[in-house]
This record gives sequence, C-alpha cells and structure tokens, in this order.
Amino acid sequence: MAHTIIDGKAIAASVTAVIATEVAALRKQDIQPGLAVILVGEDPASQVYVNTKVKTCERLGIYSEKHILSKNSSTEDVLILVKKLNLDPKIHGILVQSPPPPQVDEEAVIAAIDPAKDVDCFHAVNVGKMLIGKTDGFFPCTPYGVMELLKQSGIDPAGKHAVVLGRSNIVGKPMAALLMQKTPGANATVTVVHSRTPDIAKFTRQADILITALGKPEFITADMVKEGAVVIDVGINRVKDVSAPRGYRLTGDVKFDEVAPKTSFITKVPGGVGPMTIAMLMRNTLKACKMKYRL
Amino acid sequence: MAHTIIDGKAIAASVTAVIATEVAALRKQDIQPGLAVILVGEDPASQVYVNTKVKTCERLGIYSEKHILSKNSSTEDVLILVKKLNLDPKIHGILVQSPPPPQVDEEAVIAAIDPAKDVDCFHAVNVGKMLIGKTDGFFPCTPYGVMELLKQSGIDPAGKHAVVLGRSNIVGKPMAALLMQKTPGANATVTVVHSRTPDIAKFTRQADILITALGKPEFITADMVKEGAVVIDVGINRVKDVSAPRGYRLTGDVKFDEVAPKTSFITKVPGGVGPMTIAMLMRNTLKACKMKYRL
Repeated sequence: MAHTIIDGKAIAASVTAVIATEVAALRKQDIQPGLAVILVGEDPASQVYVNTKVKTCERLGIYSEKHILSKNSSTEDVLILVKKLNLDPKIHGILVQSPPPPQVDEEAVIAAIDPAKDVDCFHAVNVGKMLIGKTDGFFPCTPYGVMELLKQSGIDPAGKHAVVLGRSNIVGKPMAALLMQKTPGANATVTVVHSRTPDIAKFTRQADILITALGKPEFITADMVKEGAVVIDVGINRVKDVSAPRGYRLTGDVKFDEVAPKTSFITKVPGGVGPMTIAMLMRNTLKACKMKYRL
Repeated sequence: MAHTIIDGKAIAASVTAVIATEVAALRKQDIQPGLAVILVGEDPASQVYVNTKVKTCERLGIYSEKHILSKNSSTEDVLILVKKLNLDPKIHGILVQSPPPPQVDEEAVIAAIDPAKDVDCFHAVNVGKMLIGKTDGFFPCTPYGVMELLKQSGIDPAGKHAVVLGRSNIVGKPMAALLMQKTPGANATVTVVHSRTPDIAKFTRQADILITALGKPEFITADMVKEGAVVIDVGINRVKDVSAPRGYRLTGDVKFDEVAPKTSFITKVPGGVGPMTIAMLMRNTLKACKMKYRL
C-alpha cells in the first residue's frame, strides 16, 4: 500500500516557525517568553537534552536560563532554586530535567513548581485539567506533539479506534486522555494496552491509529498491524550495532521496514515524534507567557 | 449461565460498617470526621441526595453540616462559604451538590475548595493525582465504588479487558484511569467508548468487564455482551411507567432480564452501584480526617 512517512522534523519546523513569529511580535511590545531549565548532575544524555532545549529557545527568540546544580544537591537545594524561579518575572516556564539523582525527591520538586510555569505538565493540577478537558493548563509535550502530528497530517481521530501501547505518566496515560476528549481533533475510541495485557496483538490489529510507547525495540511487526493503519512510534531505543560509529543505533518500537508498507501513515525513529516534543515545549512556554499577560 | 447478582447494598453496608468502627475509635481520641454539604437552591432531587448524605454521616458517627443557600446566590456567596469551611477545623470534607443554579460558576467553586477537603475528587489536583497513580488525594466516589464492588466480589481486573461506556468527568474518565493503574486491583486493559464511537457493540462484545455510564435506558442488550462477562451498570435513568406509583421507574443502561443470564456477575439498578457512591464519600471523609491528623 502507498504510505506516507510523517516527517516530524518538517512539522516541528512549521510549529516553531509560528512560535518564532509570535515571539517576535511580543518582543516589539517588550514582552519576551522565558524558559528556565534545571539540570541536577552531569548525566551526558541529560546535558544533550538540556542544550538542545536552550538552543531552540535561542533560535526562536525565547529567553532561556540553564541552571546546573551539583550532582550532590539535596531536594532542598533544588526547591530553593524552583521557588526563586517561580517568583522571577523573566521566567514563564520551568522544567527540571528528568531523572534527577536519587537523593532528590522529584515529586516534591515538581509539586513546588508554580502550575502556571509547569510547561512540562508534570504538576498534578495540570494533569487533572488535561483529563477534565480544560485548556487553561498545559499538555505534556510528547503526547501533545503526537496530536499535532496527526492534525498536520490531516488525520482526524474522531470515531477512530486509537490503541495506545504503554501507560507511563509521561506518554501513555496523557496520550489516552488527549485522544478521548470531546473536542475537535480528538473524539477517538481509546484502548490502553500495557505490560499486563496478555495478548497485545489482539488489540494492535484492531487499531486505526496505533501509538507505541513501550520502549521495546522493533516489537511491533507487520502481522500486528491492520492494513491502512496510522502508526506513530514514540519509542526511542538504543540497540547495539557494532557497525555504527557509536556502537549503537536508535530504533523505535516498530519494525519499520516490514510495517510501513501496510500503513497509510507512519513515523520514523529518529525524525518522527522526537522533534515534536521540543517544539511543543516551546509552544507551552509561549502559552505560559501569553497567559501571564492575558494575551 | 449461573450468574451472581452483585449486591451493592450489602457491599456498601460492609464498607460503612468498617468506617463506623474507625470513627468510633477516633472519637475516643476526641477526633471526629466532619463533612459539610452545600446545596444552592431547592431542587427536590438534590435535596434528597443531600439528606441521604447527612443521614449516613449521622448513622456512622461523622459530624455533618448542611448549608442551604438561596437559589439566587451568586458565585461570590458560595465562595465565601467555601473559604469559611476550608478554614473550619471541624470540617474535613466539603462538597457542593451538583448542579448549582446557572448563575453560579461551578468550576470556580470547585477550584476554591481546599484539595485536602475535596472528598468528591472534583478539584483538578486530585484528578491529576488519581491519573498519575498517587494515593494521597481522593478517588471520585462512583468509580471508586465500582472498584470496591469488583474487589469485594473477588473480581481481579488484572489482564482483563475492561470496556467503559461513557467519558464523563464524574464516571467514565476516572473509571478508565483507576482501571489502568499499575496497582493491585487494577491493571486492566481499558477501552473507553462514547457517543462518537461508530460501532459500540463491537467493543462491548469484547469486554471481560463492561461498565456502562451512558445514561441510555436499557441500551445494552444480550447480543452486545460476551458470555461470562462482568457487567456493572452505572446508569440511573427515569423511564415513564404509568403503572408505577410515581409515574416512572428507575432503570439502568442494561436490559437486565436478558443480559443477566449471559454474565458471570452483574449489578442491578437500583441496588447496585448507587449505594456504593455514598459509602465511598464516607470513606473519603474519614480519609481526609485521618490525613489531617497524620493517622
């Protein structure tokens, strides 16, 4: 079947282009959205993520601050910084790069972030608003990015059967919550499948829209997918590959080469959902700023 | 097939018996849980609900207050009362009987309730905690009651396919959230079906556990149910019946007489989920009190 590869990079670029234009307009009014990123410790992968976020801010005209705390920091150390940033008028979004070192109580830190600055949507009040269907909070960046991929690809989930693989708080649960809402761009019948589901394939085969966030490399094979389905791969897995320059390659949850021909639309890893996550973080930061100024 | 009728009245009685014992023990330490119920206006059905709640409190030794505000009250009038009750040390739970008259901004009122006293679990922060899987908030009384019915009937949802009909904020969405959690007594594969689902029967026929909260009288017929399924009927519908003393009778979403023989377990309307809702409200009030005293 002829299938379309959803180009996450291109869609993310279209999202950030709109943001850059809006930011430029705000700055003419002397308003600049600001994002503070907190990193505790020196985990190399986390450093890469944080730097990408800061660089994207710079590119879009968003003010940013990178706060790197020592890996021995206490919960109290992080809380003091969060409370300072809560009060800082230059800062509209605050995020704490996950995971912090084990001695830091991540839940306590997240609960301390001003919900109006919680651009990751990790605070319970924003999670609750999302499930209730209120739009004056934030949506978590990755599932929000998936919704945008569907929208910009002309895929309306209304009346479709969306099957979500995984029930994490960052992807699976909010993904299901967003898809089931009674709102344009949602209205899907939603099934959440997870590690305790005995026969996962029974559900994936029924999916009009299949969204995988299991973290199992190439778990989804062609026989598990319905002809003509939309497949969105949120998994990012490192797989040993001695032929690759770094000794590993990145792969999704989907065995792309065999699954793609059966689909109508499919994302790739990398270049699919990944670029959307950061684009939606930028959109949330802009939203936080606009809400503060009641714009 | 031999089926068991789940007796909601008996299970609710076993829940409240435990609560009464706990309340009696607390009162020996001079601690008494307290519930404040706010009713705006004189809607007869709402008055019945409020009176039942107050009477149940009395029976279990829980202190209660009934605040009846005039039907012309403003949002501000209700907010003033809520803020007073937030500060009142005798009161551990506050609920505003829904729906208030149209001039009262229900969302604003709910947002004003101290989350630690939000025993209905309508506040976004408690809804968020529920979805995240935290247990230091509250669960909404009706879906929480369904979880208790399953538990006390020896039905473990783990690995089962639970199909929830309806996506309201009071029943459908939190029901799905509770069933999908990675926690004992949950772990179901969950599908949420609703008004925008084209072929509802396709999903209901797959359900190991079918939970209906559509508000459509006798919508679920025998051909829509799998042999041996568990059927929980959350619907309460008034149907005209000239032979009934009040001119109507109550019926659920399920055509009980024809569906029951196909099931392994089924609830009736009335006498199924209904009595559980108030029992779980009492449990939440007791929990709010114990959390306040860190017991």
